[in-house]
Amino acid sequence: MPVGFKANGVSAGIKKSGKLDLALFYSISPAKAACLFTTNKIQAAPVKIDKKRLKQSKHFRAVLVNSGVANCFTGPGGIRDAQDCLKELAKCLKINPKQLLAVSTGVIGKRLPLLKIKRALPSLAGGLSQEGIDKAKVAIMTTDTFTKEASVKFNLGNKAVSICGIAKGAGMIAPNLATMLCFIFTDASVTSAALKRALRNSVDNSFNCITVDGCMSTNDTVILLSNATAGNTLVDTGAHFNLFQKALNVLCLELAKLLVKDAEGATKFIRIKVSGAANFNQAKKAALSVANSNLFKTAVYGESHNFGRIAAALGASGVEIDEARLKVKVSPLRKKEISVDISLGFGRGCAVVYTSDLSPEYIRINAEYS
Amino acid sequence: MPVGFKANGVSAGIKKSGKLDLALFYSISPAKAACLFTTNKIQAAPVKIDKKRLKQSKHFRAVLVNSGVANCFTGPGGIRDAQDCLKELAKCLKINPKQLLAVSTGVIGKRLPLLKIKRALPSLAGGLSQEGIDKAKVAIMTTDTFTKEASVKFNLGNKAVSICGIAKGAGMIAPNLATMLCFIFTDASVTSAALKRALRNSVDNSFNCITVDGCMSTNDTVILLSNATAGNTLVDTGAHFNLFQKALNVLCLELAKLLVKDAEGATKFIRIKVSGAANFNQAKKAALSVANSNLFKTAVYGESHNFGRIAAALGASGVEIDEARLKVKVSPLRKKEISVDISLGFGRGCAVVYTSDLSPEYIRINAEYS
Repeated sequence: MPVGFKANGVSAGIKKSGKLDLALFYSISPAKAACLFTTNKIQAAPVKIDKKRLKQSKHFRAVLVNSGVANCFTGPGGIRDAQDCLKELAKCLKINPKQLLAVSTGVIGKRLPLLKIKRALPSLAGGLSQEGIDKAKVAIMTTDTFTKEASVKFNLGNKAVSICGIAKGAGMIAPNLATMLCFIFTDASVTSAALKRALRNSVDNSFNCITVDGCMSTNDTVILLSNATAGNTLVDTGAHFNLFQKALNVLCLELAKLLVKDAEGATKFIRIKVSGAANFNQAKKAALSVANSNLFKTAVYGESHNFGRIAAALGASGVEIDEARLKVKVSPLRKKEISVDISLGFGRGCAVVYTSDLSPEYIRINAEYS
Repeated sequence: MPVGFKANGVSAGIKKSGKLDLALFYSISPAKAACLFTTNKIQAAPVKIDKKRLKQSKHFRAVLVNSGVANCFTGPGGIRDAQDCLKELAKCLKINPKQLLAVSTGVIGKRLPLLKIKRALPSLAGGLSQEGIDKAKVAIMTTDTFTKEASVKFNLGNKAVSICGIAKGAGMIAPNLATMLCFIFTDASVTSAALKRALRNSVDNSFNCITVDGCMSTNDTVILLSNATAGNTLVDTGAHFNLFQKALNVLCLELAKLLVKDAEGATKFIRIKVSGAANFNQAKKAALSVANSNLFKTAVYGESHNFGRIAAALGASGVEIDEARLKVKVSPLRKKEISVDISLGFGRGCAVVYTSDLSPEYIRINAEYS
């Protein structure tokens, strides 16, 4: 993790399996935050709480994350549960509870096991360390089969800065966003406005360009914390902002691809590029229509050259399609990584989205997960 | 079939399996037609041809249907192929080729085996009979596991009239419409305008309220032919129109439900009712969002009480949702037929949609089908 950040992960007993299920991310000094949340109209209690706190506080010190229970569709009780946990954690950390954020992922409709979590908080807070990130990235997982992290280092002026991110998937992955959680930490000093601008831009071109099953989660959260410990000149616009943006783009795209590679039941990683659309949004819409087509995804799983399904999905996308101008190229299906290149022949809009195939394993996982 | 209609089905060798793959529907006298087609922007050659003919001719005598090859994404050659078949058929039947319609279903991107079809046309036309409907309804099938038919008889004034329909599914089923073909025949005498009005209304509440995999086909076609042999007073509006509409509604809903029951890989039949929406369209949108959620469908397959997925799908639908007003009731999942009752608590809009679960068998079928 960048200088000044610590983390930890413990098993609080939220998951029956006894696996790590409670994580904490901590900054030794107040950090600026930029956050993006699901656009699902049903939002988990921690999402509601965080949105409110982001309006009230300018700086944050820690993020408490639990896996196993989403604390969503849990009514006013769910809000109280999350607030209780944060209040207790604030005591352990001896900081203002308003500088804490909460994140949950797991089964919807279940209440948090409050006592178990409270009992685990002292050791969670007590064990914070730089290396604790290794436990934290395990503790945020649900159906993920591997941990996901990425980091970039670069110079801003004569100061070395770094950005480090960890993420979890792996189902309910759809644009805007998915049940994906992503925590990004940087020691770079960046203005609050620039931090938000950069995150929005990076997410639009990474997490919002991936889809596993077209299902949008109630808990999606991306949190970017900047604690300015690198000592660089404050970044707002200009060349330094562009450097920061570029680095954040690389990091987010890397994490987004890892989410797709670990998609539930996935046997193939599929890159779909649509060019020749009227603009970026039209290109993305067309690409996502193919990416979300169960028939296309099962054809890729079966290594079956049924490209008519690509045409059918494009035709159903709502984007202008002309059969005579349409060109579709697909790389050999027997490989693990598949490229689909689609040219619509209308304009210069271009977008790339990533998805996985649909396998019987996806169904097995989701038929049993509850 | 109603009086004055005949049909037949033969094996032309389009399907490698040697199963029946060419069907013909025939009216002994010129019939009025009402037709609805897919709204996919990629449309099969026969869809393009039929749309043109419906503008040129007022009466039709026959519909030629092949399964196995969709004749879609086949360029100008595909149009010529279908026209050639119809020209040849017109010779066999000794009628004007403009009074013929063509329908195809099967693999997209393949050309029709023209010689095989032409060779089969004389015996297809020669064997027309009332009982031939039994062969025709087999010949239109692709991945269907059973034939689908429904009929209603009722009186208009002092005349007995009947409506008979047959349909095929079973994948790429989504509203507006699906790879579904439906052929409806009536001996009732109805004005052309009333026929179109009635069909649009019935389809909106039946075929447009079912979804299997959210994938919209390029070949969907519903054809309603009325040959007026019952001798009833011409129906346009009023009480007789209402009777006709009601009968057609019953018939279409029955066929739509059969399509869902034979959905690829389905083990459950799911009825989703959304009430308390602002209006019918909002209710339908919310219900379809649940019906198309892979996570919901796999939960039903696994008989897993994961109702949070219903809330998540509703929240992602774009329809106004308030967690505090939302009520969801699900019937026991161990049964074959599942009812989901959702109350949004806003207005009086209500809609019912039908769908199936998502099983490994769906993937097996679609991974191999090409």
